Amino acid sequence: MSERVILHYFNGRGKMESIRWLLTVAEVEFDEMYLTNREQYEKLLKDGSLMFQQVPMVEIDGMKLIQTKAIFQYIAEKYSLHGKDAKERVMINMYCEGLMDFMEMMMALPFCVDRKPQLDKIKAKAIERYLPVFEKAVTEKVYLVGGRVTCADVLLLECTLMLEECFCDILRDYDSLKSFQGRMTSIPAVRRFLQPGSKRRPIPDETYTKTVQEVFQMKIQL
Amino acid sequence: MSERVILHYFNGRGKMESIRWLLTVAEVEFDEMYLTNREQYEKLLKDGSLMFQQVPMVEIDGMKLIQTKAIFQYIAEKYSLHGKDAKERVMINMYCEGLMDFMEMMMALPFCVDRKPQLDKIKAKAIERYLPVFEKAVTEKVYLVGGRVTCADVLLLECTLMLEECFCDILRDYDSLKSFQGRMTSIPAVRRFLQPGSKRRPIPDETYTKTVQEVFQMKIQL
Repeated sequence: MSERVILHYFNGRGKMESIRWLLTVAEVEFDEMYLTNREQYEKLLKDGSLMFQQVPMVEIDGMKLIQTKAIFQYIAEKYSLHGKDAKERVMINMYCEGLMDFMEMMMALPFCVDRKPQLDKIKAKAIERYLPVFEKAVTEKVYLVGGRVTCADVLLLECTLMLEECFCDILRDYDSLKSFQGRMTSIPAVRRFLQPGSKRRPIPDETYTKTVQEVFQMKIQL
Repeated sequence: MSERVILHYFNGRGKMESIRWLLTVAEVEFDEMYLTNREQYEKLLKDGSLMFQQVPMVEIDGMKLIQTKAIFQYIAEKYSLHGKDAKERVMINMYCEGLMDFMEMMMALPFCVDRKPQLDKIKAKAIERYLPVFEKAVTEKVYLVGGRVTCADVLLLECTLMLEECFCDILRDYDSLKSFQGRMTSIPAVRRFLQPGSKRRPIPDETYTKTVQEVFQMKIQL
């Protein structure tokens, strides 16, 4: 159990970033093996390390875990960042699923030839669907579920920060979400993660999108 | 706790069908409220019953659950169809996530203007990615995880039956998957579910796709 956690993914956010966030809040040290070319990916395929031929893959506790949500839940459960009973767990999963749906739209952005329609869609969904739900939730409660930090809060912080990168003043009318961000970013591990030089990956750039496209031979559909 | 489970969805498979399968294997009786027009959907929205404005929604244990995977996990956990420890649970979740990714491609089919390219894609993914993994898994073991029926097996049965509806002889070279189907369909509740007149929904037809499109005002993206 003393072996280090190893993440296999690109040197970029994508589907791995939420796992980096969660490990950070859990204060778990991890190493990363960045996929930079097709050969490395083919090696992982040949090894049988990627059950469905996809990354993220995470080596932890002697297992090679795949599927982002499965990995995310395993880590949340292991480090007491999930619910303490079935009702808490389902609430957390409902919030997480909604946030992941929404974040997937943002993850697709660097791969859109024309970003404007995608940005418009993101903004519309943020305002009409997601932000009001979470604003209300963190007005009524300090944390989303169970009165303590869970994986749903970690995801909500990541999601709102990502959204502000697209639309810097989008949270202007959402005071409770701003306060929530303040509470979350005062957690020492989170504060460190937000500093330059941490394992947090930057906003996706052209190198990232080109690498993803090369490794997956352009067949990726995000 | 004596109140009946109520499913809110279309009179069709879509994202609810896996939940119907799971409740069936758990031998839980349920009622259905079918969405047939826009007004019913707007009423649910106005009631605040749909957190992210989406169905499926399931009333159970005094809650209104949304997000298919969250609902699925809650039911699996409640009726002992999930793993007994963290390692079993993550294996089950890995299999389920893969199966759901794959089934999503099949769910999109009735909404494709030209079905041929989508069918080709489904067939390619089946053969190159999914069937070999599951064939191997059920060759080595009777059930996918933990030596007993879990939600992952229920999903695998649903998925392989759905796939055979698209390509009737696709399992010809997958003897272990055929045997697995035999084991699963000998479960009395499953056998009843496969009989005409059960709550299993038929292959999506034009009425189903038209209703979905009307209720969501054509904005649906499956």
